[in-house]
Amino acid sequence: MAKNPKLRIIPLGGLGEIGKNMAVIELGNDAIIIDAGIMFPANDMLGVDYIIPDFRYLLERKDLKIHGILFTHGHEDHVGAVSHVAESFAGVPMWATPLTAGLIRVKLRSAGLENSTTVNVFQAGDTLKVGPFVVESYHVCHSIPDCVGFGINTPYGIVIHSGDYKFDPAPVDGKKTDYAKLAEFSKRGVLLLMGDSTNADRAGWTPSESVIDEAFDRVFRNAPGRIMVATFASLISRFHQVAKAAERYGRKIAVAGHSMAENIKMARELGILNIPNEMFVDINRIGQLPPSKVVILVTGAQGEPSAVLSRLATGRHRQLDVEVGDTIIISSHTIPGNEETVNRTINRLFQRGADVIYDPIAPVHVSGHASQEEMRLLINLTNPRYFLPIHGELRHLRAHSRLAMQTGIPQENVFVIENGVVIEADKNGVRLGERVPGGYVFVDGSGVGDVGRAVIKDREMLARDGFMVVVVNVDKKTGQLLADPEIISKGFVYLRSAEDLIAQLRETVSGLLASTAGQNGRRRERLEEGISRFIYNETKRRPMVFSVINEQ
Amino acid sequence: MAKNPKLRIIPLGGLGEIGKNMAVIELGNDAIIIDAGIMFPANDMLGVDYIIPDFRYLLERKDLKIHGILFTHGHEDHVGAVSHVAESFAGVPMWATPLTAGLIRVKLRSAGLENSTTVNVFQAGDTLKVGPFVVESYHVCHSIPDCVGFGINTPYGIVIHSGDYKFDPAPVDGKKTDYAKLAEFSKRGVLLLMGDSTNADRAGWTPSESVIDEAFDRVFRNAPGRIMVATFASLISRFHQVAKAAERYGRKIAVAGHSMAENIKMARELGILNIPNEMFVDINRIGQLPPSKVVILVTGAQGEPSAVLSRLATGRHRQLDVEVGDTIIISSHTIPGNEETVNRTINRLFQRGADVIYDPIAPVHVSGHASQEEMRLLINLTNPRYFLPIHGELRHLRAHSRLAMQTGIPQENVFVIENGVVIEADKNGVRLGERVPGGYVFVDGSGVGDVGRAVIKDREMLARDGFMVVVVNVDKKTGQLLADPEIISKGFVYLRSAEDLIAQLRETVSGLLASTAGQNGRRRERLEEGISRFIYNETKRRPMVFSVINEQ
Repeated sequence: MAKNPKLRIIPLGGLGEIGKNMAVIELGNDAIIIDAGIMFPANDMLGVDYIIPDFRYLLERKDLKIHGILFTHGHEDHVGAVSHVAESFAGVPMWATPLTAGLIRVKLRSAGLENSTTVNVFQAGDTLKVGPFVVESYHVCHSIPDCVGFGINTPYGIVIHSGDYKFDPAPVDGKKTDYAKLAEFSKRGVLLLMGDSTNADRAGWTPSESVIDEAFDRVFRNAPGRIMVATFASLISRFHQVAKAAERYGRKIAVAGHSMAENIKMARELGILNIPNEMFVDINRIGQLPPSKVVILVTGAQGEPSAVLSRLATGRHRQLDVEVGDTIIISSHTIPGNEETVNRTINRLFQRGADVIYDPIAPVHVSGHASQEEMRLLINLTNPRYFLPIHGELRHLRAHSRLAMQTGIPQENVFVIENGVVIEADKNGVRLGERVPGGYVFVDGSGVGDVGRAVIKDREMLARDGFMVVVVNVDKKTGQLLADPEIISKGFVYLRSAEDLIAQLRETVSGLLASTAGQNGRRRERLEEGISRFIYNETKRRPMVFSVINEQ
Repeated sequence: MAKNPKLRIIPLGGLGEIGKNMAVIELGNDAIIIDAGIMFPANDMLGVDYIIPDFRYLLERKDLKIHGILFTHGHEDHVGAVSHVAESFAGVPMWATPLTAGLIRVKLRSAGLENSTTVNVFQAGDTLKVGPFVVESYHVCHSIPDCVGFGINTPYGIVIHSGDYKFDPAPVDGKKTDYAKLAEFSKRGVLLLMGDSTNADRAGWTPSESVIDEAFDRVFRNAPGRIMVATFASLISRFHQVAKAAERYGRKIAVAGHSMAENIKMARELGILNIPNEMFVDINRIGQLPPSKVVILVTGAQGEPSAVLSRLATGRHRQLDVEVGDTIIISSHTIPGNEETVNRTINRLFQRGADVIYDPIAPVHVSGHASQEEMRLLINLTNPRYFLPIHGELRHLRAHSRLAMQTGIPQENVFVIENGVVIEADKNGVRLGERVPGGYVFVDGSGVGDVGRAVIKDREMLARDGFMVVVVNVDKKTGQLLADPEIISKGFVYLRSAEDLIAQLRETVSGLLASTAGQNGRRRERLEEGISRFIYNETKRRPMVFSVINEQ
């Protein structure tokens, strides 16, 4: 390492959220990456499967030596792109806590990359030596166990990356956020705090996960029949809470949903989830128990069409049917953009005779992220010279920065930046640097980045009014139609009930061909314009129109 | 009217919401319609412009005499389908309060139906004689002035239709919900209460609209430059609140947005909105005033791409640009399904240097609908024998019905039904009746109902992976390709950067044609299957594939 290497910090990726899926820390020509997550596309990113950070910048910096990829926790938006980075940065070792490492290994295995990738496992609290970097991990509470934040030692002070965190005063697993470590960082001198901004517009303190115990207890006490609890497949602590309530009321636990069953198995093997074998019952055997002795954990709390809850709501599940008397708890926060599908799912479950308990009907879920008072606490505990809000949309970063300033950090020491903007530091302090590509890349099928704005734009047009292709065979000499035009159209009208329209269209095409005979160069264009005009006049719609003219 | 005519009540329309857009009240062969609104399509109803109630049932009941269409208030989900009903029920008179009638007339005019439709104007509190029906209107508070509920006299007691309502203790225009009339109904005997359920899962009492005054005051006091207030074009009382704050701080009001300007003009003409002329400044002249002396009312608080706010956020407005120092207040509730676009708009406004104030940053909007305590109050004031929750999704009706039972209405007297389910009453009481068609109809362009599930399904497939049409000319005798196949594809890949794929595809097509030569009947099908398989193997995508085989 050079004597006074420049420190550079770059948030990458994230759909509107800054530094959510990836961050880069560089010291001179050495670097580490923190997290490699995915985002799910917005409703108007049609046909896109998921989104990964645009880490082109790292691939182009040939002089940069990447020493490791460190993970804060096992949620999709922090580990989901692991196979993409394992491929792009082959040979770079990864670092994760046991549960996170378990979740990562599942992904690497299914991508055939398990053997070619080193995953180093550490415990929260461990100090990691990653190349020339000395990184101190510390435990944080969030909505999945085994979460950490990082204190990265640099010649200019410690850089803290908070990860996703909250200060839960009574976490379900008893493991609190590591106040002592944060205070210790403060004593040694914190240069910069990178803080989770997700709930920066929420006043107060996020309720403890243990408030859910009480809400669960009330439901378990009164439910006349089966109980189903829908939640995230990775919400391990919620499984623990369900198990405690189930034990109290003599119910056995069944699991519906492959990913959830896998995660429970792994968490039990790792000793993170302590539920005895005899508490479980196979999903195929619940019929042998009275309904009041069963609780079923199910996936699909976001209304995902292929997950269990949505299948139950529409009667498409192989093993389960919703019955009158069932009580269904939706124990998760609705991810913005999913409101419509979640609400529709709830309505359908009611329609099938179930009682559905969801927030705000009862407090059956709490956020995993810090609210304003916790954010203030983090700032006060660590006492950073500079502050960089991350993990949130611009509006959240603004609210977080306002809060940081109220908490005593000078306005000029607070940076509200977008993905790809570099923060630079040396012995003279921290300042804004250049901007590198830092957005996101669409993944669609096996294609990474080959679907861009133009294709999405076409999909939008197709989604709105469909398309029409008209194929005509004409006599090379006379320009006359040799047969009826062939019309292929989808998404425009239901062709079979639009016979009149199609008949008129055929006439229009025939007329257009007669009037454009001889205009070889622009004939196709004229034909398409004429068809579009006819369709718009008749229907006020604008399908994409194409034609093929075969001359024989 | 027959001696003991059967009373029938039918909620119609509404996208997941029950009786939101229309309700029918029948007494024997006489009927009235309450409201005729539209809904905006869900995100997955691709290409649909809007949705109207399916009132087929009314058109088929030739024996039924419809005497009038009565409107509760002027919001789109209650008046938006007025030109559709004016056409379908030509000659049936309409009844509305002055503001609602004004909004209806604008719609009728633009549909060329103004002269052929009678709109009777009444004042809240008037008793209407609509054919054999005696309907007593009464004022309610909501988020637009001139709202009413109806008490419909029947031989079996009064039926109350609450409209959209809240019990605002300090409404901006001073006009409270008519407690006295409701209590009077109660004394005379209420058979059935049809109550707005929108906020049935919200505890407590909806805050008064006047709390916004305080929030506005704080913003107006501190804003260094221009203020923009984005809200619904019909939120007349909000304009009044803005005007009061503007007057206090010496700002002039400009209006950006055609529909908003029209509504302000109409409300001022009707004497509903009292803002003196000298408070206004033309939007083109605001440059002549210091920024701190201007407030601009803008449309587009739902993130609608063509409205003012969204144009400002993306720099596409003709007259206005967002400037550093601007303060923008988002003074509206985000309609479920619009969260992504609203949040994106807020982020973009921040990006352009504005400060954006929105709920929960400050209480700059309150709901126009009653919360649980107000719902209890309505039930207690009117003391109905039977209860029918309306205006809400099934989950809201459930919550509302639970509340009604807690408030003393026996479970068997509470009806949670879906659109098209008939509630019947005679001297023996109220019970569930048959079910008639009562869903919704898609409007797309000039087509009403011609876009159904099949077309939407095709649009979904097109939106996901696009389409490909392959046109081949083959020798009739040999089956050999006469020229390169012509490929038309949109929404699948960007063809110009997929040269390799296209080259391979041409080879595949050629191979498929050779291997299927002679299979006349199923050749086209085989070709399409082969192309789909090739594309899926190469890209893991499934565009819609079509082919045309021309034999020459």
